[in-house]
Amino acid sequence: MIAAYQAQCQRRVDAALDSLFLAPQADLGTLYQAMRYSVINGGKRVRPLLVYAACEALGGAVEHADGAACAVELIHAYSLVHDDLPAMDDDDLRRGQPTTHKAFNEASAILAGDGLQSLAFEVLADSQRNPQDAQVRLAMIASLAKAAGPAGMVGGQAIDLGSVGLRLDQTALESMHRHKTGALIEASVRLGALASGNADNRTLKALHAYARAIGLAFQVQDDILDVESDTATLGKTQGKDQANDKPTYPALLGLDAAKAYAQELRDQALHALRPFDHAAEPLRELARYIVERRS
Amino acid sequence: MIAAYQAQCQRRVDAALDSLFLAPQADLGTLYQAMRYSVINGGKRVRPLLVYAACEALGGAVEHADGAACAVELIHAYSLVHDDLPAMDDDDLRRGQPTTHKAFNEASAILAGDGLQSLAFEVLADSQRNPQDAQVRLAMIASLAKAAGPAGMVGGQAIDLGSVGLRLDQTALESMHRHKTGALIEASVRLGALASGNADNRTLKALHAYARAIGLAFQVQDDILDVESDTATLGKTQGKDQANDKPTYPALLGLDAAKAYAQELRDQALHALRPFDHAAEPLRELARYIVERRS
Repeated sequence: MIAAYQAQCQRRVDAALDSLFLAPQADLGTLYQAMRYSVINGGKRVRPLLVYAACEALGGAVEHADGAACAVELIHAYSLVHDDLPAMDDDDLRRGQPTTHKAFNEASAILAGDGLQSLAFEVLADSQRNPQDAQVRLAMIASLAKAAGPAGMVGGQAIDLGSVGLRLDQTALESMHRHKTGALIEASVRLGALASGNADNRTLKALHAYARAIGLAFQVQDDILDVESDTATLGKTQGKDQANDKPTYPALLGLDAAKAYAQELRDQALHALRPFDHAAEPLRELARYIVERRS
Repeated sequence: MIAAYQAQCQRRVDAALDSLFLAPQADLGTLYQAMRYSVINGGKRVRPLLVYAACEALGGAVEHADGAACAVELIHAYSLVHDDLPAMDDDDLRRGQPTTHKAFNEASAILAGDGLQSLAFEVLADSQRNPQDAQVRLAMIASLAKAAGPAGMVGGQAIDLGSVGLRLDQTALESMHRHKTGALIEASVRLGALASGNADNRTLKALHAYARAIGLAFQVQDDILDVESDTATLGKTQGKDQANDKPTYPALLGLDAAKAYAQELRDQALHALRPFDHAAEPLRELARYIVERRS
């Protein structure tokens, strides 16, 4: 069931994203191609799914969430392009395809990432693409800017790069992941809730607890998959974290305890959704999927 | 007189900027240091000056323009950090100091730039730092996102990198500069006008003509200075554009014609300001300063 919902969200957001990459003039063609290549790549669109599912959980219409779904995916895509750069994680493959700096060049990849970030905020500020009240649009922009920025995702990548070869304890590792991946996942759920037009503080708080738990579960499962999957299934170089001596949950807790922890986080996420009715079913399904996925 | 006004704007925006770089936790210390290093560097703050001067030209209070002044400078600072990277312009010096990737490392410079861009939008969306009506804040965010993004500044850098070694004609060269530096200068004037609370379409249009002319004049003069100044005065490596076979106005038009063109653009800028009273004097002074400056 989550596969069908995921495919539906993927089609929906891909159509909305696709409209963003028409170069306004010929000499910008390569830049727009590089941005498009970085975004339109068969990605699973987990963050847009969270936007749509959170919007629907509060009785909102999915078409009101297209702008937010695009924006979070643009931020995610830019972060991958920059993270893959030689000076960062130095990855040649992403979802089985050459990374942007391999398909184009480093300068184009830096600029494509920079442009995608701007575009995310442009989409949220645009009343056509994001037809919310001005106050709601501003709340979305403030949340996304904070989640993407130095106190969020960018900060997480900085902590990550600074921690290679260090023995982090669980608290330090979770701080890194809460920044690096958790902040944008939390923002996705929040933006979806805001897009519904029905978000009050109590529901935002419950959804925040849900998002926090699945964000961490997602990372724990990623670490497990890095140990267990082969490169073909994963679409990126397997065992890379281990080879780079990066801190991981299996390394810290042991593989079995890491699996148990992922399941505990899933249960926390489901618990946070107890006040919600059937409309929150996609969010519940996603929490289950995150710890069951194989890639 | 413009020197005093410039010093006053510089002090004002530097104080506002300085408050943005307190790391919220210890493991983010290096990232926040790298961002701070990239911004708090004795820069002339031409774009914040434009924000303040445009706000005052419309009778607005400068304290309403602090958020916009910070935001445009954060975008400018991030663009310099990324432009200086080895994969881009590969510059070791900026204002006589090591560039961010030299003072820290490449990964930190990429992340600092990324974080500064997020921070610009966070500041504009924040009702404390940018106490405007919601609609005005949204118009500011939309303008800045567009100016900073692929159809603006980032696009200009992409055109620039794609044009090295090519013989551009004047139209192509101006398209590059309008994107690379002009878009953010135009946005600075627009954000300042919006911050006044008194911007109507007619004044926005006049200020846009002003900004377009000085943006181009600024670039023509930069090209002239690259030929004429020594490295110490310029604070960056002199003759670098020529050495890299970059298209420049002196190369295209000849040095004397380039100087005459800069002066013609200044006159166009002054002409656009004819409907404005004495409150627009700093804008006028700046137009004169741009073509008279030696660094």
